Amino acid sequence: MNLKFQKAQLVNALSIVMKAVSTKTSSVILESILISASNNRVVLDATDTELSIQTEVDAVIVKAGGVVLNAKLFSEIVRKFDSTESLIELEVDNDFKTTIRCEQAVFNIMGIDPVEFIPMPKIDRDAFISLSQFSLKEVIRQTEFSTAISDINRMMGGELIDVKNNVAKFVTLDGHRMSIRNIELMGEYEDQKCVVPIKSLQEVMRIIDSDTQKNVNIYFSKDHILFEFDRTLVLSRILDGEFFRIESMLSNDYDTKVNVSRLKLQSAIEQSMILIRENEHKPMILDIENGMLKLSVNSSLGFMDAKVNIEKSGSDLKIAFNPKFLVDALKVIDDDFVNIYFTNAKSPCFIRDDKNTYTYLILPVNFIG
Amino acid sequence: MNLKFQKAQLVNALSIVMKAVSTKTSSVILESILISASNNRVVLDATDTELSIQTEVDAVIVKAGGVVLNAKLFSEIVRKFDSTESLIELEVDNDFKTTIRCEQAVFNIMGIDPVEFIPMPKIDRDAFISLSQFSLKEVIRQTEFSTAISDINRMMGGELIDVKNNVAKFVTLDGHRMSIRNIELMGEYEDQKCVVPIKSLQEVMRIIDSDTQKNVNIYFSKDHILFEFDRTLVLSRILDGEFFRIESMLSNDYDTKVNVSRLKLQSAIEQSMILIRENEHKPMILDIENGMLKLSVNSSLGFMDAKVNIEKSGSDLKIAFNPKFLVDALKVIDDDFVNIYFTNAKSPCFIRDDKNTYTYLILPVNFIG
Repeated sequence: MNLKFQKAQLVNALSIVMKAVSTKTSSVILESILISASNNRVVLDATDTELSIQTEVDAVIVKAGGVVLNAKLFSEIVRKFDSTESLIELEVDNDFKTTIRCEQAVFNIMGIDPVEFIPMPKIDRDAFISLSQFSLKEVIRQTEFSTAISDINRMMGGELIDVKNNVAKFVTLDGHRMSIRNIELMGEYEDQKCVVPIKSLQEVMRIIDSDTQKNVNIYFSKDHILFEFDRTLVLSRILDGEFFRIESMLSNDYDTKVNVSRLKLQSAIEQSMILIRENEHKPMILDIENGMLKLSVNSSLGFMDAKVNIEKSGSDLKIAFNPKFLVDALKVIDDDFVNIYFTNAKSPCFIRDDKNTYTYLILPVNFIG
Repeated sequence: MNLKFQKAQLVNALSIVMKAVSTKTSSVILESILISASNNRVVLDATDTELSIQTEVDAVIVKAGGVVLNAKLFSEIVRKFDSTESLIELEVDNDFKTTIRCEQAVFNIMGIDPVEFIPMPKIDRDAFISLSQFSLKEVIRQTEFSTAISDINRMMGGELIDVKNNVAKFVTLDGHRMSIRNIELMGEYEDQKCVVPIKSLQEVMRIIDSDTQKNVNIYFSKDHILFEFDRTLVLSRILDGEFFRIESMLSNDYDTKVNVSRLKLQSAIEQSMILIRENEHKPMILDIENGMLKLSVNSSLGFMDAKVNIEKSGSDLKIAFNPKFLVDALKVIDDDFVNIYFTNAKSPCFIRDDKNTYTYLILPVNFIG
């Protein structure tokens, strides 16, 4: 094989597939990438068996072929070449001895026969939805935090994608809180449902653009989900089994409704968190009255309270939370003002908008007061 | 005590004294700062016993007094207050209960009696030199890397400051290399000599400005060195004993002189380092010929060579180095082209300029070739 790359393009393609390269593995293949050139296409492939990524890169194909190279080493060599203008030449002989040349520098490293590589599984491409890269990036960012890696319940480490009546619902929950984002799809799609490991979605989020004009196609198959965008394919295993029954946890009833500046509330809660040492589990207490929300923390480090102006309807309420759970939700919401709905001190609160694009459920904690 | 601070000024003063706060200590005092207000001055103090920092901060003194507060906690509270405009009020009662107020938030934390604090030692201010903050920052940056924390020889963890005939020489060495920077002082000063723990100089470097117009006064006393600049004092213990005899290590003789683009050489060496795994101790071999320097590395990961154009006078030479030691020196030099002087494959090379402002000595390593 003999290929010539432009450095910036190769670096970009490598940074995409590197996201599926295992860092902690004893398998030589799982810490490698496959470079293959055939039919006038050069493709990079990487897999950690859970997640597989394939991307196409522009190159001059002097001679077609393929090689498997250590991903970290090859990527470091390419990145360290000076010029972004000069071509990087990759030459592989029949024993997979690989020569990488750029300007006055030459590297010789050992490659592996491509037949050793684990190919990306082929899946049916019947059932799919399409949405903008921007939307997908946003919904993952706005839900990824309420997950938990747990051996007891693997579903907490996944995100439900539930397509129904051309609305895609993205849901995560970790036992203390739940995050829901709904996206109206442009087009007519069949109903679909699957649970994707959050790590896979996070890698997709890191690769895709914040571009509203470019789309992602998402294909659903029995054991896998496939994301197709630009010149890249990301294939992930999905989690076996049923997701939680989330409908039973939701409620539109409330006794107290608060409308508050998102940033002012977030800032006051972040102040209160200073006094809470990790593992101390001290609650933050909210005192909700007409026009004013008072939050306070009393811990081994000291005592604090802060007042935030609100608009309130319904009953006064005293309720306690783990402040981090409230802040995590407030941080990812885009609205300047949010509505928070409460029932009583033992029931979850809901942060949600009127258009039903997001719902954050947060369980309160016990307190003495 | 009752003081009113402007947030940005208090944050700035805290960030200065925090550099002398111990992070790993069981002493409550060493992880605290002293705030004292008297004679219309508000001063912050911190010490880890090696290093003491004192800085003045603007404040409205409603009532004079003092308190010792946990540095991290107080600093986090101050930083998290929203407004940079609003005043932060600090009120301390007779039991050192401390109230910190800003807009709609109030914190109550426990302070400690200032008599518990370790005051900054008073030193004689007879012997001193003065140089610009910019120059001091530069010489520390250009020498700090060739130090070693060693129980066998504590001098390797220090930097020699040697003032002679109105030139200040800054020297560090770690057994493999030595870095020397000379600064001509503006003014007439007595000769001085001391060895300062590199950590103290690094903290000074981080606090001072890159300003050529503002000066640092450095005072030398028996056990301490004091840096005075802006509204800040930094006092450090000095190391007991004699520094290495560096004159005997220096030589102006050479058999080979190379003039080379600093960045081109640095870039080629950094490329070669990709193939050297940590703890592998593979040498980088330099082949110096007329007009061309070839560097190569042969390791378990592969083989590389790179060519760099040079101007050479004197003999051809083959010599090997730990590439990191060459790069560390090249990275901190400001000149576009550097002169490197060699004698033979067993003797150190010297990177130095004609004006004698810097000299970097680097020992070669053995190689088979």
